[in-house]
Amino acid sequence: MEDLYPSRVGDEPKILERKDPVLYGSPQELKEGPLDQQQLGFYEKNGFLLLDNFFSAEEVAEMQKHLHLLWEENRNNDSPEIVREPGSDEIRSIFDAHRKNELFGRLSRDPRITDMISQILGSDIYVHQFRINFKPGFKGKEFYWHSDFETWHVEDGMPRMRAISCSILLTDNHSYNGPLLLIPGSHKKYVSCAGKTPENNYQSSLKKQELGVPDNDSLAQMVEEGGITTATAPAGSLLLFECNVMHGSNGNITPLPRSNVFFVFNSVKNQLVEPFSGLKPRPEYLANRTVQHSVLQES
Amino acid sequence: MEDLYPSRVGDEPKILERKDPVLYGSPQELKEGPLDQQQLGFYEKNGFLLLDNFFSAEEVAEMQKHLHLLWEENRNNDSPEIVREPGSDEIRSIFDAHRKNELFGRLSRDPRITDMISQILGSDIYVHQFRINFKPGFKGKEFYWHSDFETWHVEDGMPRMRAISCSILLTDNHSYNGPLLLIPGSHKKYVSCAGKTPENNYQSSLKKQELGVPDNDSLAQMVEEGGITTATAPAGSLLLFECNVMHGSNGNITPLPRSNVFFVFNSVKNQLVEPFSGLKPRPEYLANRTVQHSVLQES
Repeated sequence: MEDLYPSRVGDEPKILERKDPVLYGSPQELKEGPLDQQQLGFYEKNGFLLLDNFFSAEEVAEMQKHLHLLWEENRNNDSPEIVREPGSDEIRSIFDAHRKNELFGRLSRDPRITDMISQILGSDIYVHQFRINFKPGFKGKEFYWHSDFETWHVEDGMPRMRAISCSILLTDNHSYNGPLLLIPGSHKKYVSCAGKTPENNYQSSLKKQELGVPDNDSLAQMVEEGGITTATAPAGSLLLFECNVMHGSNGNITPLPRSNVFFVFNSVKNQLVEPFSGLKPRPEYLANRTVQHSVLQES
Repeated sequence: MEDLYPSRVGDEPKILERKDPVLYGSPQELKEGPLDQQQLGFYEKNGFLLLDNFFSAEEVAEMQKHLHLLWEENRNNDSPEIVREPGSDEIRSIFDAHRKNELFGRLSRDPRITDMISQILGSDIYVHQFRINFKPGFKGKEFYWHSDFETWHVEDGMPRMRAISCSILLTDNHSYNGPLLLIPGSHKKYVSCAGKTPENNYQSSLKKQELGVPDNDSLAQMVEEGGITTATAPAGSLLLFECNVMHGSNGNITPLPRSNVFFVFNSVKNQLVEPFSGLKPRPEYLANRTVQHSVLQES
């Protein structure tokens, strides 16, 4: 398959144009789905959409309970799905928990979420990845700027930009406890990064990403054009962001954890092929390579 | 001299009460100085005061020019006054530049600043320390929570809480490029930290402080009581903060540096004695031990 978005193939970074639409739904689908025209317009232009207080207080309390359970259960779990903070033993991320945790499994099929995603992606969808990023108080470290798509394309073989991350905020995301930072409009460019991917890059990159990292000049240019938006909102809010929007977050020295779960939905028409790096694919818990987990088939 | 604020003397952290006033000026001095009653009341209660757009655009441009000059001049300077970022060679801090740089030297005697400080401290004052914290874009790392006074007391022998930091914001301090975070009201408590100071602690602590660091429970309690204030303001603003107020800042992954200069003014009635750690004092560029640099005598 032709590589429409080459990256980590040379010594010089480059900014390429996006070759895919942002809204895939037919006019009919876009009109009939749960998101209204203003919300769709905002998403198309900026690459994200923040929906404050999407879940009820009771639902949030229930999710927080499960969040704590997973944190406690996995304190001493050395499975690869559990990623630790650089410089400490605190849990940074847990991957794939939606397959074992009933509540998060159910959420991955919640029509309040999946109907919005299908509306935008114009097709059936499936869960490509699920993770919780805890960003614990005092010790949570930054997530450097990146486009998710760049990694999913190069390391997992996601061919096109037709996926969406859906982040549920499970603690209040303040400006000071490491909220997601986004560069509005950056999803319409693609930063082809310098460097070459080593084997098993994910084993270090999930702690601290060093490859597939945009260069300073590209970042400065994007911020100059689009500015920076801080996704601050109360627990229970929901953030949709496009797979190619440039984002990252600072660390968290405050006592207040910034814990969010992320469902990544991919279009069934955009299933993974061989990684464009030419290397072997990353494990299933990072990138679902089977359609058996499609929302339709599961529900 | 009796140690009124013992710290790093045991295994258990403790929260002690402040034994010093916050406003030292006589009723007459407090009434006649440049700060009004509301500003003084805010400072007394919260431990800081942010004065937006204190300097004119021309003054800010001039200071920024000198900031860049100092950054360029010291790129390859391996003097101890130049502190590098952990994990990179970027300049983190420059100490003591006001003695060589004419503009910053002049600012340390600017009556618009010194009259406010004298009003609060109720005496003549002198520059205890001068530093620039660059917090460069992309790579600037966090400054963990600390009370400046705790270090100045233990490592430099500052006997009482009678000093003020005056920070001039030289770039726009946004919520997302690592602005100063303060815990309002925390200056009225003193966290006596656990641990023992090793010789020459400053050689690593200026990159990353590991001692004189408040414990998680004390921090959580203080934030529960006082919350967190983010000192966001445009370049040219000025922040006064009390020597014992708990503060820190997150890192900065954005392309926008957060560069501020800090003048620390101490009362001439609060001159340094032998460090309460019992160790030898830190170098003069970190803690001025002579009154020859008092504002009065210099001007």
